[in-house]
Order: sequence, then C-alpha cells, then structure tokens
Amino acid sequence: MKVLATIVTIGDELLIGQTIDTNSAWIGQEMNKIGVQILRRISVGDDAEQIKYALREAAKSSSLVIITGGLGPTKDDVTKRAIAEFFGAELVFHENLWQRIAAIFEKRGKAVLEMNKSQAMIPANATIISNDLGTAQGMWFDEEGIVYISVPGVPHEMKHTIDKAIKMIQQRFLLPKILHKTLMTAGAGESSIANILREFENNLPSFVKLAYLPELGVVKLRLSAYLNAQQDFNMEAKVEEMKKLLGEYVYSDEEISLHEAIGRMLKRINATLAVAESCTGGYLAHLITSVPGSSSYFLGGIVSYHNDVKTNLLQVKKETLFSHGAVSEATVEEMVKGVLHQTGADYAIATSGVAGPDGGTPQKPVGTVCIAVGDKNKINSQKFHFFPSRMENIKVSTNVALNMLRKFILQTRQEFKTTSLSQL
Amino acid sequence: MKVLATIVTIGDELLIGQTIDTNSAWIGQEMNKIGVQILRRISVGDDAEQIKYALREAAKSSSLVIITGGLGPTKDDVTKRAIAEFFGAELVFHENLWQRIAAIFEKRGKAVLEMNKSQAMIPANATIISNDLGTAQGMWFDEEGIVYISVPGVPHEMKHTIDKAIKMIQQRFLLPKILHKTLMTAGAGESSIANILREFENNLPSFVKLAYLPELGVVKLRLSAYLNAQQDFNMEAKVEEMKKLLGEYVYSDEEISLHEAIGRMLKRINATLAVAESCTGGYLAHLITSVPGSSSYFLGGIVSYHNDVKTNLLQVKKETLFSHGAVSEATVEEMVKGVLHQTGADYAIATSGVAGPDGGTPQKPVGTVCIAVGDKNKINSQKFHFFPSRMENIKVSTNVALNMLRKFILQTRQEFKTTSLSQL
Repeated sequence: MKVLATIVTIGDELLIGQTIDTNSAWIGQEMNKIGVQILRRISVGDDAEQIKYALREAAKSSSLVIITGGLGPTKDDVTKRAIAEFFGAELVFHENLWQRIAAIFEKRGKAVLEMNKSQAMIPANATIISNDLGTAQGMWFDEEGIVYISVPGVPHEMKHTIDKAIKMIQQRFLLPKILHKTLMTAGAGESSIANILREFENNLPSFVKLAYLPELGVVKLRLSAYLNAQQDFNMEAKVEEMKKLLGEYVYSDEEISLHEAIGRMLKRINATLAVAESCTGGYLAHLITSVPGSSSYFLGGIVSYHNDVKTNLLQVKKETLFSHGAVSEATVEEMVKGVLHQTGADYAIATSGVAGPDGGTPQKPVGTVCIAVGDKNKINSQKFHFFPSRMENIKVSTNVALNMLRKFILQTRQEFKTTSLSQL
Repeated sequence: MKVLATIVTIGDELLIGQTIDTNSAWIGQEMNKIGVQILRRISVGDDAEQIKYALREAAKSSSLVIITGGLGPTKDDVTKRAIAEFFGAELVFHENLWQRIAAIFEKRGKAVLEMNKSQAMIPANATIISNDLGTAQGMWFDEEGIVYISVPGVPHEMKHTIDKAIKMIQQRFLLPKILHKTLMTAGAGESSIANILREFENNLPSFVKLAYLPELGVVKLRLSAYLNAQQDFNMEAKVEEMKKLLGEYVYSDEEISLHEAIGRMLKRINATLAVAESCTGGYLAHLITSVPGSSSYFLGGIVSYHNDVKTNLLQVKKETLFSHGAVSEATVEEMVKGVLHQTGADYAIATSGVAGPDGGTPQKPVGTVCIAVGDKNKINSQKFHFFPSRMENIKVSTNVALNMLRKFILQTRQEFKTTSLSQL
C-alpha cells in the first residue's frame, strides 16, 4: 500500500528566499528510502491562517504530513498556536520540558527568558518527539487516520527528530518494500559512467531504477527496486555486476564520501596523512577532519597561501617558485616533500592553483590547478583545468586530490592487491 | 495594492530530494525586491494531474503564478500539455522556434531529435518569453486577471527568462514600494537580541517587520517596510536606532559573512592574518580563503591535529600540553604565539577543543573549546562549552573565533576608535 506524504515548510525566510530549503530535500530522501512517497511540498510564511491552510490541503490527499520550521523562540507562538487551532486542541504547559529548557540555558551560561516559556507549551493531543539538541520539541499527532509530524527547522535538530519519527512511521504504517543500494564512484563523469552502464541499464527489469547523482568529482549511483510484499530481487548480484563493469572507479559500496573512504583505507593500513594546501585553502583538511575519529590518521596540514609560507614552512625552493611559478607540478611536488618532512606523515597531498575570480593569466587561466600526492619514495603530480568559479574549483580540486591519493595507495600498497577495489 | 504570488516548482527530483530547490529562493528574492509578495510555494512531480492541481490552487489566492521546471526535452510533453489543458488551449507548432532549436543543436555539434520537436509546441494562448540560453522557452499567460509565467528549471535559463519576465510584471501590475535593510550581528543569540530589541520591535508601525535569521554564532536581522505609492518611511533612522541598541554586536549593515567582514577590516588597516587550528581542522582557513582576494591579507595556517605538530611546528611546550592539556587556554595562547612567529602575520587565531563525538572526559566534555586571538603584544583567550555535535562545534567555534578577533582589533586599533562600530 502506497503511503502518500506532504511536506509543509514554514518560514517567511523561505518565501523571500533568504534561506534555501535544504530540509525538504533531506526529508524527501529519507522518506523515499523507507517507501513513503512525497506527493507535494507546500511552503508558507509565519502566518497562522496560511499554516492552517497548508495543513488542511495536505490532509486532503496525504496520510502523512511532515511540518518543519516555525518553532524558534521568537516564532514559536504562531506555529504551535496554529497547529493547536487546526486540531481544536489546547496548548498545555509542560513543567518537565520547562526544567529541561532552563537546564540547557544554564549549561550554556545564559539566563532563560520569559519568552522561552512558550517552548514548553505543547498542544494537548501531541506526543512529544524529544529534541536532545535544542529547546524546540518535535511533535507527533495521529488524528482521523492521518499522522502529522512537526519538527524544528534548524537542520541538525530537524534531522535528529525526523530520525526518531522515522521509527514511529515504520511502526504506524504498512510500508512497501523498497531495496536501495548505492555505489560511490570517482574519476569519471556522469556521461562516461552512463556509457559504461548503458547495456546493464537497458537490461534492468522495469521495477528496478538506476539514478545518477553527480557532485563535483564524484558520481553516486543508486539502484532501487520497488517490490510488492511477495516479490523478491537479488540486489547483491546486480550490484556485483555494476562493480565489475566500473572497476576502480568504484570507491565504496556504502554511501560515504571520498574523504571518509580514504580515512578507512588509512586506518586499515595503519598509515598517517598530512596536507599542504594553497588553492584549496584549508578545505581539504576540513573535509578530512569532518570525519569523527580522523585524528587517528590525520596529523595535520599547512595552508601555504603566501609564497613565504611555502618557502619557510614547506621548504619549497625559491628558484622553483621563480622558474615554474607557484601553480606548477614542480611546486606541488616540493610541497608534498616539505609537509612529509615537517609532520613525519606516511602520505601527503598538495594543491596549488588559480581558484579565481582574479589571478588568472593567459598561460594559467582561472581553473588551472596542480595537485601532487605521494609518500617518501614516490610522488605523482598532475595539472588540471577546472572551472571559472572559485568555490567549484576549491571543491573539485579537493575531490580530485583525494581520488589521486586513493589510486596512489591502491597501486603502491600490497594490502589492497588481493581485495576487490570496491570493498574499500 | 499588494500583488500576491505563488511559486510552483515541478519535478520528481525535487520530491525525492535529489535536487535542492535553489530556484524558489532566487525567485523569492527577486519578487520581494520588486514588491511582489510570495504567498506560498508548491512543489509537485512530473505528473499532469498534480501540475493542474497546483495551478488551480495557486490561482485561487494569487494574481501571479510563477512555474519553473518540467520543461526539459524528456519531460516537456507532460508540463506543457498540462498547462494547455488547464487553459483549455491547443498546443501549436512554431516553425520559427523549431528552426532556432535545430540551429542550437547544430551549433553544439549534435543531431536534433524528433523528441526535441515538442519544444517547439506552445499553448495557443501563450506569449513566448524567448530563452536565448537553451531550447525550452519561457511562456507568459494572462487569463481572467491572473498572470501565469512558466520558465525552464535549469538555473541559468530560469534566471535569464525570469529577468525578462520581471520587466513584464512591472508593466502589468501596480506594485507597492518595499524597503529592506539588513544588520549582521555576532556574539549574542537570537533570544538575547530579541530581548534587547523588544521595545523597539513593539513600537514599529504595523507595515514594518523585523525578521531574525540565526546561524551558528551569527544572527542576521532584516527590517522590511511595506509601503504604498504615496507613503514614505525613514528606514535609515530606524536602522540607526537598532545599531545604537545593539552596539558592538553589529558587525555590518551589509549582508556579508563574519569572515568577509574581518577581511575588510584587515584590508583597511593593511594587516595580515594567520591561523593555528586544532578542533576546527582547517575550516577557519577555508572560510577565510573562500573570499575572493583573501590572499592580500591571509598568509596561511597550520592545522595542528596531532600534538607533535603543535610542538614541532607551533612551538607549543611539551610541559604545557602535559600539565594543561591540548584543550586549554595555555595551549591556544602558545599556538597563537607559534603561528605568529612562523608566518610573521600581524594577527593570529588559534582553536583547540573536543569536537566530538569521541574524546570527551568528565573535565572536558564534548563541546569544550578553547580559542585565543592576538598580536605580538597581547593575547586574549577563552574557554567555551558548545554543542554535542561535531559539525556544529566546528562551525560555531569558527564564528566565535572570528568574532573574538573582530573585537580584539576594534579594541586595539586606533583606526576603529573614531568610527561607529557598525560601519565596518
């Protein structure tokens, strides 16, 4: 049985475009994974009449209504009062919630204000989905066969409460069987991958779909089978077929980032990494350290934005900078050597490029980036021509650099010779 | 007279969250600027019934309906047929459009396909808004007092056709005057700011609204006045009032990030900056270098994830690490000294903390972060207790660190003594 859902997002900032609605996309993905089909999304402002309109409209065609936003301390009154009115319910003060909110403020060393009291007011017919990361609570309503879920709009609090709600949804509804498998690839563009998989894709049964989700330097492939209760399908076999076709482009069969995959490889061989960044300006180190536990393999990095930092801290030779320029294979190779020497790491990555919008020359236009990866025995370097936009250049350089390191380790370490590439 | 609009976005990829809807935000901003008020946004899939539902709903309450998406060569049939059906109009083949589409394909070195012919089919009641950047045309309908605009979903084609449509909207409707002013603040949470501004806000005329837009460590304030043609309002005076009340919390009266504001300060006093990062892991350097032209004031940074990098590259004393720990005010102060020495920068920032999820102790739980800022004469350091989540800790630490540097420079540099703080 199909469960149809409507997402309602609340906030003036969405309508005037001050905030981009990333919450809806995330919720859409999560619902899709558990077999809930999003029929529509409606966004309205912080206005009681509009919120009630959205709930009425959603209830006409959906058995699940997911509401996000409008629950900050300054907005709380409007949304919760509108929801209470929609149900004809009273707002009830929860003493235990108030204690918790006060405790959170105390912990942060701040005085709790009278206006925060509204966050402890909850419609009488709500089941609270407790929010451990903030003061606005999630709420669950089950009225006349329709479930309504209201969660805060702050992304990490939204994800936290929706994760809890998902378990409740799976218990409350009889959901169809959907199987998903994801393969992560790097080193080939969307069309190259599509070309490799053309025949494979044409031979898929009609209830199996392959989606391409390209990001800068990485293409995520998602195979989904939509089954009825009796039906079965061998996803594993299909995924193995894809892996064989794609070879070393596949860096994981779990939905993880390239920097997470590299972290796992380094952990497995008990090796350490350091980075020397010019054009990526710290983004490479940031991505690597965004992974919990990265301190076990990441020693550190040097962001050598100014040439003096390249020569003083990374021992890049002045003559190299003079004759080849800062954006050159020779320079990034010396940066790798320098950061290996300074940190004692087993592996290093170095980047130098013209991120833009300024700094381009006819010889080295914006988007020219040199990347080197290596260890104490060997260094690989390469020059690339990427995009006209600064952030795109920074991001694609980072992913390409990480993929160069992945290939370097695969080629040089005995440990990976015997395993299938995609098992990393 | 208020012109209310509904944005309708079309595409299965929006509902399953494969694509984040940035188009709606952009259109919302542009409409807001010309005095069109977005009442709602509705997103539906590539389905004729759902598209017609969205148009009917939009028409009930709006005098302007803006439709994006659903016009690619593979989707074209569904959306345009649905729109034609909605109006009871025929689809008409436009020979001149077909010639142009064929020419675009030829220019791209590709064969034009029979399926592209549908892109030359236009509802009989449409005025074409020509799209010079692609093969899917924009369309303008004016029926029973309501204007409907349909544009492609590819962002640059959407912007191109909406820009043309805006001129037509301004001719077709009598639009009100809307004034906006933004103030950026750091160092106080949403509730503290709201508390400071309570009386100010209560005394605002009904046609003026104040919006709070909090991010981690930063709160954006937006004052909007909705005026009729004869009405006038002194926004500048109101903004000055707010600035006085908020004092040094205000870091800019332009909509810029904290790292951009710091960049402007450093440029103005011709000073340089370097960073030493432990828990922020490169994110601070990344934000600073995400600003074009940052190479004129940012020298570089050291990401000292491992303690050996702190002692070797930043000259943090082993005894300091031993007796105070890596997460201590003593350590971050030495990190500031070390990176100032290593890079020769005028100012430095250092961070060290337990970002989590692991690594916490009863004395230093996850979220404990020490930050220091300073120059060769003076160093300020402080210990904080932030969040349980890793990314939140990294992000809030970065903004708090940047704000500490801002305050340090304000307090120590003569250049800023004579100017109003908010003019930076």
